[in-house]
Amino acid sequence: MTQETKYNVAVVGATGAVGQKIIELLQGKSFPINNLKLLSSKRSAGSAVTVNGKEIIVEEATPESFEGVDIALFSAGGSVSKQLAPEAVKRGAVVVDNTSAYRMDPDVPLVVPEVNPEDLKNHQGIIANPNCSTIQMVAALQPIKEKYGLNKVIVSTYQAVSGAGNEAIDELKTQSQQQLNGEALEANLLPVKGDEKHYPIAFNALPQIDVFQENGYTFEEMKMINETKKILHDDALHVAATCVRLPFVTSHAESVYVELEEAGVQVKDIWNLLESADGIILEDDPTNQTYPTPLSAEGKEEVFVGRVRKDLDEDKGFHLWVVSDNLLKGAAWNTVQIAQTLIEKDWLKK
Amino acid sequence: MTQETKYNVAVVGATGAVGQKIIELLQGKSFPINNLKLLSSKRSAGSAVTVNGKEIIVEEATPESFEGVDIALFSAGGSVSKQLAPEAVKRGAVVVDNTSAYRMDPDVPLVVPEVNPEDLKNHQGIIANPNCSTIQMVAALQPIKEKYGLNKVIVSTYQAVSGAGNEAIDELKTQSQQQLNGEALEANLLPVKGDEKHYPIAFNALPQIDVFQENGYTFEEMKMINETKKILHDDALHVAATCVRLPFVTSHAESVYVELEEAGVQVKDIWNLLESADGIILEDDPTNQTYPTPLSAEGKEEVFVGRVRKDLDEDKGFHLWVVSDNLLKGAAWNTVQIAQTLIEKDWLKK
Repeated sequence: MTQETKYNVAVVGATGAVGQKIIELLQGKSFPINNLKLLSSKRSAGSAVTVNGKEIIVEEATPESFEGVDIALFSAGGSVSKQLAPEAVKRGAVVVDNTSAYRMDPDVPLVVPEVNPEDLKNHQGIIANPNCSTIQMVAALQPIKEKYGLNKVIVSTYQAVSGAGNEAIDELKTQSQQQLNGEALEANLLPVKGDEKHYPIAFNALPQIDVFQENGYTFEEMKMINETKKILHDDALHVAATCVRLPFVTSHAESVYVELEEAGVQVKDIWNLLESADGIILEDDPTNQTYPTPLSAEGKEEVFVGRVRKDLDEDKGFHLWVVSDNLLKGAAWNTVQIAQTLIEKDWLKK
Repeated sequence: MTQETKYNVAVVGATGAVGQKIIELLQGKSFPINNLKLLSSKRSAGSAVTVNGKEIIVEEATPESFEGVDIALFSAGGSVSKQLAPEAVKRGAVVVDNTSAYRMDPDVPLVVPEVNPEDLKNHQGIIANPNCSTIQMVAALQPIKEKYGLNKVIVSTYQAVSGAGNEAIDELKTQSQQQLNGEALEANLLPVKGDEKHYPIAFNALPQIDVFQENGYTFEEMKMINETKKILHDDALHVAATCVRLPFVTSHAESVYVELEEAGVQVKDIWNLLESADGIILEDDPTNQTYPTPLSAEGKEEVFVGRVRKDLDEDKGFHLWVVSDNLLKGAAWNTVQIAQTLIEKDWLKK
């Protein structure tokens, strides 16, 4: 008879869109929890969340909150992670951080468990969960890269508003009703909460996700470019991204062009690869109008790939349509998967 | 004192989304009309349309409708054009056809007046108006190609439902309200009216516009690929397209990657070119969050370009975000512009 080890787990940002999904997954996946601590900002503290039939009061996250915590799952914004993740580590916790705060830190592994699980081995206490739009793309690209090599990636994204949090979902719904009523649209949040101007997202498309960088790319675009190279361990890989926010609630879609190293590859070869890849579901049958969409991927943990086409001019070029639930594989599920992998491989201890 | 020549004009498909815009433009642009005939299918005939304060009854389009007509603007679907455009030409009319029926016919000029007006000179009675998503892209690319040469174009589109007609707009609105009410979404039309399966467009993205071809590309994608080469007179140009229908009513947006022939070009060079190009408005100031969106382009005749970025790896590579009202420059306005150009250049006679 074996006895399962159970862990003290903290969820930081427990009242947010991703935090809520993490709590659902910890229950649904029967994560081996001894004690679950739900943490949030002072503002959101005090609310009650029912977990496995037991009511848990959300507490304000402070350095002391992490005493006795084994695993802390952070999803409360970059500044909270900057401030509290080191405090959690100092107290012996392993942090899986779902913000951009540590992703490009060379001492921090940036991990998609189907892609680069081995990177977890060398963690120093903090592990970064990649950006939502990056995760689903590298999950689809890794099997292709491994088999045929990869020179170039050009992606245009179709991203859901839930990536900007619960408030953004509310804004989309409110504006949609305003538009249907023939009223003026009130824009107070998107494209970026803290930025100067706000534009309507309902019945519109906003080619800005996160703030602009000096080079004219948005931070979201630079995240996709830099994180893809780090996760795939390939600084020479050419990656270009255009990120666009669209009026749907859940799931990001991506139109991805890739150039392989190997010549002569056919669509069927890519299909075969993706069909047997972990965490990928191939939905690609044009004659039956079968392809993934944001609505069809909602609530599912896998990355869905369809519309695989060989470029008509470039023998090494292929086009793919990659869709996944941005709150699950793009955030909460990948975070929980990292924690599961740390436990299964016995890599929790530094 | 000069006397302006006036023309007998017929609008075929007068009750459709594009036909209605054509009628508005003919009035707004003070098109030199002697007699205006509004034609439609038998089903839609009989309705009254007020043009310049005068009521005109829509008549059923028959071969005889074109007796005495100088210019016939067709926008009633490919089968109507196939059947009636030759009848109109036989009776002495010049046809500007807004369907895909004749676009790839080598004897039919395919024209965007800012791009290839000279092609109009050799018309044999029928002139084709390009596909909406093609028009706005070539309008933006032509000045770049002319100055720096163009090797490669990879485009991912963000297309409005009005491209599928008034019924599709109704479907989007009905489904949007269903979604906001928490009801199930009824899908009866999109992605393609005659196709087997229908998917919800509200709060979703459909990677299918028009029917699938044997090569796995949709007909819309092949239209963009083939028409771009024809309009730019460059069969060697590499063009790839992924076309996606999105939940907004008006304006198509496009994420376009181009590779130039010339090296060393900078973003400012592209800006300068586009700023002085006919029919283009540059809206590109990241520090002030200035870029075009479908809503901001709605109701305007120009093609708007923003988010011009140099690729971070490829010196000859640039990314652009191109937006235009699909019913105006993408259809009705380009059609009326072609007719205006024929008159101005005195190219109406064969």
